Amino acid sequence: MATPIERFRRLLGEVYDLNAASSVLAWDQQVLMPPGGAEGRAAQLATLSSLAHTKFTSDEMGEALEAARQETDKLDADSDEARLVSEVGREYDKQRKVTAEWVAEFSRTTSLAHQTWQKAKADSDFGAFAPQLKPIFKLRRDYADFFKPYDHVYDPLLDDFEPGMKAAQVQEIFDDLRTHQVALVQAIADAGPTDGSMLHLHYPEAEQWAFGEAVIREFGYDFERGRQDKSAHPFTTSFGINDVRITTRFMEDFLPSALFATLHEAGHAMYEQGVKPDLARTPLADGASLAIHESQSRLWENLVGRSWPFWVRFYGRLQETFPAQLGGVSLETFYRAINKVEPSLIRVEADEATYNLHIMLRFELEKALMEDNLPVDDLPAVWNDKMQEYLGITPPNDAQGVLQDVHWSAGLVGYFPTYALGNLVACQWWERIAEAIPDLEKQVEAGKFDELLGWLRTNIHQHGRKFKPTELIERITGGGLSAEPYLSYLRTKFGGIYGLS
Amino acid sequence: MATPIERFRRLLGEVYDLNAASSVLAWDQQVLMPPGGAEGRAAQLATLSSLAHTKFTSDEMGEALEAARQETDKLDADSDEARLVSEVGREYDKQRKVTAEWVAEFSRTTSLAHQTWQKAKADSDFGAFAPQLKPIFKLRRDYADFFKPYDHVYDPLLDDFEPGMKAAQVQEIFDDLRTHQVALVQAIADAGPTDGSMLHLHYPEAEQWAFGEAVIREFGYDFERGRQDKSAHPFTTSFGINDVRITTRFMEDFLPSALFATLHEAGHAMYEQGVKPDLARTPLADGASLAIHESQSRLWENLVGRSWPFWVRFYGRLQETFPAQLGGVSLETFYRAINKVEPSLIRVEADEATYNLHIMLRFELEKALMEDNLPVDDLPAVWNDKMQEYLGITPPNDAQGVLQDVHWSAGLVGYFPTYALGNLVACQWWERIAEAIPDLEKQVEAGKFDELLGWLRTNIHQHGRKFKPTELIERITGGGLSAEPYLSYLRTKFGGIYGLS
Repeated sequence: MATPIERFRRLLGEVYDLNAASSVLAWDQQVLMPPGGAEGRAAQLATLSSLAHTKFTSDEMGEALEAARQETDKLDADSDEARLVSEVGREYDKQRKVTAEWVAEFSRTTSLAHQTWQKAKADSDFGAFAPQLKPIFKLRRDYADFFKPYDHVYDPLLDDFEPGMKAAQVQEIFDDLRTHQVALVQAIADAGPTDGSMLHLHYPEAEQWAFGEAVIREFGYDFERGRQDKSAHPFTTSFGINDVRITTRFMEDFLPSALFATLHEAGHAMYEQGVKPDLARTPLADGASLAIHESQSRLWENLVGRSWPFWVRFYGRLQETFPAQLGGVSLETFYRAINKVEPSLIRVEADEATYNLHIMLRFELEKALMEDNLPVDDLPAVWNDKMQEYLGITPPNDAQGVLQDVHWSAGLVGYFPTYALGNLVACQWWERIAEAIPDLEKQVEAGKFDELLGWLRTNIHQHGRKFKPTELIERITGGGLSAEPYLSYLRTKFGGIYGLS
Repeated sequence: MATPIERFRRLLGEVYDLNAASSVLAWDQQVLMPPGGAEGRAAQLATLSSLAHTKFTSDEMGEALEAARQETDKLDADSDEARLVSEVGREYDKQRKVTAEWVAEFSRTTSLAHQTWQKAKADSDFGAFAPQLKPIFKLRRDYADFFKPYDHVYDPLLDDFEPGMKAAQVQEIFDDLRTHQVALVQAIADAGPTDGSMLHLHYPEAEQWAFGEAVIREFGYDFERGRQDKSAHPFTTSFGINDVRITTRFMEDFLPSALFATLHEAGHAMYEQGVKPDLARTPLADGASLAIHESQSRLWENLVGRSWPFWVRFYGRLQETFPAQLGGVSLETFYRAINKVEPSLIRVEADEATYNLHIMLRFELEKALMEDNLPVDDLPAVWNDKMQEYLGITPPNDAQGVLQDVHWSAGLVGYFPTYALGNLVACQWWERIAEAIPDLEKQVEAGKFDELLGWLRTNIHQHGRKFKPTELIERITGGGLSAEPYLSYLRTKFGGIYGLS
């Protein structure tokens, strides 16, 4: 006879399997599927996600949840079982509040909007997209209303990606950060140009591939429990803690593109590979939030992968891999090139110092749209004004401006801030890690990453989604979310590179 | 408001999607999955197949089926809708007769037996496997009993793979065939040895891959709706009529292995790619039976791919691909080599003339086991006796004898005959095709396959599973299953090669 918790976990396991199957199908779709498969695959994914939703929000699940809760009430509130019940309960209550009619309408609206956006972006025609974008924000306000009362209409959306986080917190931290970051970027711009031309020579794909995989193997990404493939946009996907895959894409005329994508995705993937087996096949076998996930990818990509000690270790090997292109380029020159700061139009290509400014712009716009304080038709003008204010440049057209991101067309609102928060949190971790591993830089220079990965596993990875992001930050730093470590990191690093006072 | 037939098709579509998702997961498992993924994948596949079974055998499906039947009773009995209802009804009734207890017990028993078989085969230790094989045949007899009354206990099993086919028919046709085929193989053996040594030189994988794909592209396999990858055992899998994939495996020291596997699987795949779109996402989007499926793979592999006209067309190109290996080998010598007949121990490596003898042996043994007329412990001795009788050789050990096939360990009984029937049926088609396309050989010599593929599409492929195998044979040949065209083909072809009278 199964215990209530066993019965609860069995039901969750079925839902997990359906979602994992969806992930396999989506991965295949982006990596390997022949063009003809598109229509059938859409039907398969719709069937799987509908079944998973139906099962997760079923009365049977509700009863199993209640029965399990009665058992876990007797346990330590921080036990895996108690946390599983509370987290699933939170998610169950949320999903039960959303009507089937809303889900159907949202699905239909975003499906249409996504197609329209693709064409509008190609034509740089915001006017064609605007009529599709208006109902999306209307639907998102309706969605927020399912969760009344709220402090701010943006909160329920943010909560889907950052459990427990509020718009006011994000606003406060972004306000604090923005003036400092704008000033820093301006100071760097005043310091004069950086030569990055050697990164644009011809770098054959096969050698790029081999070099990147060798690096993440040394980081600790486990190829016995994952693999890397190619796709149009790099991503990480998990089919369970023992099959976590990454993708990258190669530009033979720009060396950093594939390499840093590989390091970034490996950071995500090592997080998922590090969840403790007790949580397997439950909703806790996941990252704590998107920001915490991004803290892992950014840590390996930037704090490790774009650091001086890292290149002390790897630059010689990179020169051996590409002797004609880099044989005559010094480590110092190369290091400056891969850390070149330059305001740019496109978020996904932005450097460490300017990236967050792109995010703040989006957060402010989507918050105003949710408040119904900004007419959709005004978006392009406001976008361009803010680009000028934050980054000192103005997009020549809407394709490189307000139409550049896929998110809004897919109905993803509340997602953007997590990218910036991930950068901040990564630097909060990094200060703690530097205390715990005093010779960290020396270890990186020696290609020794096991203590670093061990710290991340112990403090973050193993817990999966067991703790809320704010709890995790509190457990590790003793305080709350803070922009200070990030600002301090940027000032030290780019102050050094650009000789700022 | 959906019509009863639309509602019925919607339910079938969900089941189809679940099964297609399982196929994607199984494909990934055999082609790409990292080792760590095995446990999670097993859980995902179990969940998907359990859900598909539950949905297909549900009362809801039964009611939708009945409502649809009332509609289709008004239609032509050969309309797609009427055939869909009758075929699903047949399958529904079968599956509803099997108890959940039997399914669970069978799943547990075969899972254990499969693991045991792998080790027993590696150790060549039939004694270790026998205790697992006995309950499998017991369970298969219990399975047959769900379908009482039957003419023969083997019939319900055969019906799973060859709808409507009976053991007595197979027995009769095999009895007719065996003496002739044994005599032919003996006559070939008496004619003296054939040199096949040039096929065992070093043939690099990349060139093999390119050559094989070029050939099946010319056949008409659509790479926009499929792809080829590598796996340990070649197979074809369909995720819908617009995504039908094949796999092959390369032996660099044996040229025919990958090439003929590619042609074989492409034959299966073109069948699935050719099903008419009206049948998509229904159980009729499939082959009519395993034998009809095998008739397509064997037709392209053997009747086309090992024929003289085919190599008149392609041998020059193969020589250009492998000049060092084949530059000095004449077309005649090469043609003899790839058609070398030699009794061998392993079924999957058997040539056209001996292959069916391997199958007959298995059919006779599993029929006797089902009748409970042959003790499992006697299997190795009986196997070896029959090998000597049919092929004139005796396995040196059980790994190369009774333990060689995976089928019984997986509980697959009634499957083997379909391989041999496929060879017979292919030759029945071939006689009709030669009448319909009088200059077929000339077309093959000219690399023109569109009329051939068109005939197969029109007469076989488009119908998918709409007609039973016997109906299809009747529609096309005007008669029943026959061994005569196959025997005639073997005698003509090998009589010519070996100079038999």
